[in-house]
Amino acid sequence: MAYQISDKLKNMKPSAIREIFKSLTDPRIIAFAAGNPAAESFPSEAFGLLAGEIFEKEAVKALQYGITEGFPPLREFLTERLHERFGCDKESNTTLVVTGGQQGIELTCKVMCNEGDVVICENPSFIGALNAFRSNGATLVGVDMDGDGINIEKLEKACRDNPRAKLLYVIPTFHNPAGITTSLEKRKQIYEIAKKYSLIILEDNPYGELRFAGEEIPTIKSLDTEGIVVYCGSFSKVLSAGMRVGFLSAPHDIAQKIVVAKQVEDVHTNQFFQMLCHAFVTRYDLDEHIASIRRLYKTKSALMIKALEDYMPDCVSFTRPEGGLFLWCTLPEEIELSAFVKRALERFVAVVPGTAFDPEDSGVSHSFRLTYATPTEEQIVTGVKILGELVKDMLAEVK
Amino acid sequence: MAYQISDKLKNMKPSAIREIFKSLTDPRIIAFAAGNPAAESFPSEAFGLLAGEIFEKEAVKALQYGITEGFPPLREFLTERLHERFGCDKESNTTLVVTGGQQGIELTCKVMCNEGDVVICENPSFIGALNAFRSNGATLVGVDMDGDGINIEKLEKACRDNPRAKLLYVIPTFHNPAGITTSLEKRKQIYEIAKKYSLIILEDNPYGELRFAGEEIPTIKSLDTEGIVVYCGSFSKVLSAGMRVGFLSAPHDIAQKIVVAKQVEDVHTNQFFQMLCHAFVTRYDLDEHIASIRRLYKTKSALMIKALEDYMPDCVSFTRPEGGLFLWCTLPEEIELSAFVKRALERFVAVVPGTAFDPEDSGVSHSFRLTYATPTEEQIVTGVKILGELVKDMLAEVK
Repeated sequence: MAYQISDKLKNMKPSAIREIFKSLTDPRIIAFAAGNPAAESFPSEAFGLLAGEIFEKEAVKALQYGITEGFPPLREFLTERLHERFGCDKESNTTLVVTGGQQGIELTCKVMCNEGDVVICENPSFIGALNAFRSNGATLVGVDMDGDGINIEKLEKACRDNPRAKLLYVIPTFHNPAGITTSLEKRKQIYEIAKKYSLIILEDNPYGELRFAGEEIPTIKSLDTEGIVVYCGSFSKVLSAGMRVGFLSAPHDIAQKIVVAKQVEDVHTNQFFQMLCHAFVTRYDLDEHIASIRRLYKTKSALMIKALEDYMPDCVSFTRPEGGLFLWCTLPEEIELSAFVKRALERFVAVVPGTAFDPEDSGVSHSFRLTYATPTEEQIVTGVKILGELVKDMLAEVK
Repeated sequence: MAYQISDKLKNMKPSAIREIFKSLTDPRIIAFAAGNPAAESFPSEAFGLLAGEIFEKEAVKALQYGITEGFPPLREFLTERLHERFGCDKESNTTLVVTGGQQGIELTCKVMCNEGDVVICENPSFIGALNAFRSNGATLVGVDMDGDGINIEKLEKACRDNPRAKLLYVIPTFHNPAGITTSLEKRKQIYEIAKKYSLIILEDNPYGELRFAGEEIPTIKSLDTEGIVVYCGSFSKVLSAGMRVGFLSAPHDIAQKIVVAKQVEDVHTNQFFQMLCHAFVTRYDLDEHIASIRRLYKTKSALMIKALEDYMPDCVSFTRPEGGLFLWCTLPEEIELSAFVKRALERFVAVVPGTAFDPEDSGVSHSFRLTYATPTEEQIVTGVKILGELVKDMLAEVK
């Protein structure tokens, strides 16, 4: 039967990343493609102990319906932490618990955009966000990035050219996929442009806790005197991805509408894991736990960069992230990206082609994303070596 | 600041039920209003034991990202059960795990409806579904119910009058809020009308396992030779509401689009609880557990009906459900509903006014919803007695 699918969904395909993820069941594959945090980043033992206590003492509360805004003690903790560490002023904003940062992004778009409204994004950008915007019928406009964040002239032009622009989506810190961190000066410029063109900024910061080099930079949200920034964060990269607990901080009036929209998506976020997160941050040292993840990624990213320096021809450039999970490699133009990705997979190395991250789906990219979070140290070296050899083989073929 | 909220959300308010639920922290309140399952319906002890095992043996799998479609062993179990018990043919349908039945409803609307398309619903209907449709910009058309389900003539007229109708949302079994079960004959008529007018039927069956009287009636999905029914179910009323694990069965092509839409809402449903559900159904006897819930609700519903017979004046009518959580009381016209609900709360009895369940939000209703699931047996008798006295007081005032 030919179904009449809604206009917003009918041309959408499953995310390339999630599809690649499904194919990763082959244990021979070196998984540079997935966005999975390292298994060592989950406090499994502490969670097991705390889970036992919750099921023993508070099972009914953990298994019964909760309230849409989130488990109150967890919200209180988050409000304080977001205020102190991430500049989300607690007087003028409401903190909500959401079902992963992904839901925070999707809900913000649903609340702010009509079908046909424009969302301006960095190019490249996080595919999960791009598809969330598409699934709400938004039109995406991509703005190229420089080494220190979005290109400001092109951003201003995109704002001028798109009177229906409502939302400006940015990942200023340890960008996915580009591995770039936006400078403070650019953050200020981005904020001013959003103000000038009456855009709401959606600042996505799932990796913000994971800095392993360089200096902390204030969030765009910390500059938000006008109440135009929605800030999204997540426990996925510091406690557990599979539990689906994220959070956001938004001006009260926007937050109130997000609550309404969330209520009809999933009523509330898993109650047990909200209680578990709260128990963890109360009884354990979250900062020490995060410090251990930073050390882990510092080592693994350094190893990957060293391997790229050792095994990649000089014509391949790559970013050097100061935190987060990803780096971004760019091939010389004579190498065809889709063939490269396909042949890498034949050699059992999975990477994500840059085309997946293009807001405007132009099909043109010479870049691919690597993660150092998921693979072992041995796999990092072996995998990069294989990719380096593949680049050399392909260069030899075109010469 | 005055924000430009999207057209679909700007006039939406938080669900009356969830708002009442928030006010139920006062322990003096008798909670006839909430849709919460009885705390005794949660297999807390078994969940505690199984949780310990999962954290001990499979913590990383439980805490890492999963796949959007759901945890494969749980999906396999559900596919078989839905096939055997609920007529969801496993060859022509895909089973998906969703974040509560609520998400299944919301996603189906997102995938099938453009803004401005019409969803035809029973009047009254489940407020969570109505608001999910509204949040996707759908226009709602309500069709009155008879004692054996939706009025067929009015349904046909609604289909004729609304060429933009795409979806027909029904709760044929133990209807929320009306407590009615649709007869088999009407199920067949509903299916034929949907076929005739090219509508997709969304059959919501969260209470289908909870029959405590009468005979099982085949689902509408079991009649689905054309592939036009999406069937939604949930573990919320049989295992845990707070864990947010539901499921749906849909024709493959629709399911594929639902996966895309789900991916961008929350990536996947909480992985740990999917594993926990699977462990429970594998290691424990789900049917025996459900049988214990049926016995519980049989006793509590009988007690509420007896109390209504004893304490309510004859001018108040009420439904006699054969299963599920709710019954529906209708006041004589001379009693003003909103005053009744307000005064009941002053006497510490919370009920939900029928106006909350009106798809067209007409503000006109003389009915209210009661649940016997949440209150204790003592509260059921006390609460109904208070409501009966209030009706008598209000009747005396208007005479």
